[in-house]
Amino acid sequence: MAAVTSSLDALPVSDPVRRQFDFLLASHRLTGVLRLNRLLDGSRSESSAEHSWHLALMAIVLAADHAPDVDLGRVVSMLVIHDLVEVEAGDVPIYDEQLRTDIVAEEQRAAAALFGRLPPEEGSRLLALWQEFEAAGTDAARFARAIDRLQPLLLHWASDGAAWAARGVTVAVERRLMAAIEGFWPSLGPIADGLVADAHRRGLLAD
Amino acid sequence: MAAVTSSLDALPVSDPVRRQFDFLLASHRLTGVLRLNRLLDGSRSESSAEHSWHLALMAIVLAADHAPDVDLGRVVSMLVIHDLVEVEAGDVPIYDEQLRTDIVAEEQRAAAALFGRLPPEEGSRLLALWQEFEAAGTDAARFARAIDRLQPLLLHWASDGAAWAARGVTVAVERRLMAAIEGFWPSLGPIADGLVADAHRRGLLAD
Repeated sequence: MAAVTSSLDALPVSDPVRRQFDFLLASHRLTGVLRLNRLLDGSRSESSAEHSWHLALMAIVLAADHAPDVDLGRVVSMLVIHDLVEVEAGDVPIYDEQLRTDIVAEEQRAAAALFGRLPPEEGSRLLALWQEFEAAGTDAARFARAIDRLQPLLLHWASDGAAWAARGVTVAVERRLMAAIEGFWPSLGPIADGLVADAHRRGLLAD
Repeated sequence: MAAVTSSLDALPVSDPVRRQFDFLLASHRLTGVLRLNRLLDGSRSESSAEHSWHLALMAIVLAADHAPDVDLGRVVSMLVIHDLVEVEAGDVPIYDEQLRTDIVAEEQRAAAALFGRLPPEEGSRLLALWQEFEAAGTDAARFARAIDRLQPLLLHWASDGAAWAARGVTVAVERRLMAAIEGFWPSLGPIADGLVADAHRRGLLAD
């Protein structure tokens, strides 16, 4: 990939800073990657950058009660970078289950390319952090993965199920996909169940 | 302030979770607060939520070289929450210097109201984190404040000075306002100077 802007070459800063700026400007395009759900006022789609920010806020708010022994800084850093691959690969809604499986290899290529813009040591560190999130093998990653699934559920619920209706999502599908929350982080399971049950009771999720 | 949605009252979750969700949904309105600069493709204004996310990413990228001894988790948490008061008070561009002074009391009221939605202990902790950022008395806050000023400079530079042109910003004004970066965090000063000098050389900042 070419540098984001050729003007970076002429900028009077050190080479590491130039590479960091190139990465930061390429990453800013996450503001242009649009998700299934809209903002709560319905005005436009939520961007993946906004989603990532809200996940970080959610982790900060829920950590004390649910993950007091987990390194919150690591969780938040993971959530800030977890969707950067979408700059190249795009966002695939959770309901497109086959496509989500198909896109894994493309996301791995995108991660190598994007983090490869950084100075090597730093790029390797952030690539490893992204891989840790994907692998869900550590407590920090599992808490982050649970939050990543809980946040859209909260927003769909709060926007009266607009995204569910648009996709014709049934309560059985939502319950199956949201079971991952309890799998990743057991104490968040009952909260997810409460949102799904209330959405079903109010007719926001179809039978 | 009333709860974001009356449906929260009927949700089958504990009272602390209900308060956390109320806070998270109220905070999500930061996606609707628009800033002076546009996305790099010019398609729409950047939201304060996106700005906050990009600041967090910038801190993660610059910390190893510039602030290896600062608690990065604390810096990132601070950056994620630092603009939440804009949900009530709105965003005031740095170039509206008088208005920025005038709005301080309003932002303090907004912070008390917004963080007051949370369970008390948690609300106090986040309010203190926001006040730490504002006071700029700790290394974490000073690094965060420097990043908060450097990121718009990078975006204005990368979008060929569109926001500067719209506001008629001169190189003298920009240099004066950006001197705060070196004040907050000396090692970032030369980087900011490099961006301003290059923007001036290319005619993006007027004499």
